[in-house]
Amino acid sequence: MKFEKSKINTVKRGAKKAVYDKSEIYSILDETEICNIAFIYNNKPFVQPINFGRLDDKIYIHGSLKNRMTNALLETEEVCLNVMILDAMKLTRSAFHHSVNYRSVMIFGSVKELTSDKDKLQGLKTIINHFVPNRWEYCRKPNKKELKATKVLEITIKTASAKIADTPPADKKDDLNLDFWTGTIPVKKVYDFPISDEFAKNKTKIPNHILDFVKEKNK
Amino acid sequence: MKFEKSKINTVKRGAKKAVYDKSEIYSILDETEICNIAFIYNNKPFVQPINFGRLDDKIYIHGSLKNRMTNALLETEEVCLNVMILDAMKLTRSAFHHSVNYRSVMIFGSVKELTSDKDKLQGLKTIINHFVPNRWEYCRKPNKKELKATKVLEITIKTASAKIADTPPADKKDDLNLDFWTGTIPVKKVYDFPISDEFAKNKTKIPNHILDFVKEKNK
Repeated sequence: MKFEKSKINTVKRGAKKAVYDKSEIYSILDETEICNIAFIYNNKPFVQPINFGRLDDKIYIHGSLKNRMTNALLETEEVCLNVMILDAMKLTRSAFHHSVNYRSVMIFGSVKELTSDKDKLQGLKTIINHFVPNRWEYCRKPNKKELKATKVLEITIKTASAKIADTPPADKKDDLNLDFWTGTIPVKKVYDFPISDEFAKNKTKIPNHILDFVKEKNK
Repeated sequence: MKFEKSKINTVKRGAKKAVYDKSEIYSILDETEICNIAFIYNNKPFVQPINFGRLDDKIYIHGSLKNRMTNALLETEEVCLNVMILDAMKLTRSAFHHSVNYRSVMIFGSVKELTSDKDKLQGLKTIINHFVPNRWEYCRKPNKKELKATKVLEITIKTASAKIADTPPADKKDDLNLDFWTGTIPVKKVYDFPISDEFAKNKTKIPNHILDFVKEKNK
């Protein structure tokens, strides 16, 4: 399944890197903890990073009642958000062609606030299980007071695109014989061994859902 | 030296995490390859990741002539940009208090296009040396044709703030005896050993400025 190409999501610069396939776009979202959200505040564009959760074509974010970003999104009822994973630095003989390998996703969606406790819990569950799979089963669920203090926003993905660069460094023909080093420095996010909090009960016993998560992430 | 607190840069949510010190803010910028830029396109807010370089209170970005982001920034002549480094995932007994340790910087600046070849070269040099220190000395400098095909934007930092979270997971008192695991999963960006391009001359000889860079980054 692909997102339909329209004026808003069609990649113009570097169109060869463009990807519209839903499963590829979702897998980039799912690999990332943090997205960057654009919003208007005092008539000016702002960007802010925030954690999120995805389930099917829905993305959930949450914030305190007075958060200016969530309030701004609820005013416009739409959002542009981006996630990017840096995979490698590419160094060429020419300054001009230095670049990076990356996976980047642009999401364009509609925004609504979840108001019932049931819907808010479902949104927060998605956020927690996006953070660490199955974590929702291994923590205390939000209570009435906490739910009341939190805005939960549901973003419905209307359209999207990804750009994926995964190629070697590329100089122009005239530069191939220049005696400058050219190559790739792979970059990856590494998850260290979990550290139990000093006040944790059973400090020595790190549960399987945590160990599995770290193992899977570092694959 | 600190950035003066004004309405635009004063951190409201999580004010205890706020940092206005210039050297701390610059060091977060310098540790990052990619920033996220907010801009207006067709009257809507967009966010896009891009690489950059910093020198003193200037940030440089570049793009092709038709790039919609650089053109949008030149229309408004101002910008909000963000960089964020994720340092750890923090898991609490309660779903509600899960969070992350991070260093995030918000920059508010004015934007102008550099037009002389001399200024453009200085901007591009800053970008390349931000990518890998001293790299500018070890690659072919941009020629007239390349300079003509590139827009180089200079952002002057007008004000800024950082948020730094670097604390253990924190549950409320009532939850401290719950039998759920709580702890931290440190996250870091790791730079793998450089891979010389298969068409590189002297493939076996990776220069010191590259080896030093990787060593320094993985410290």
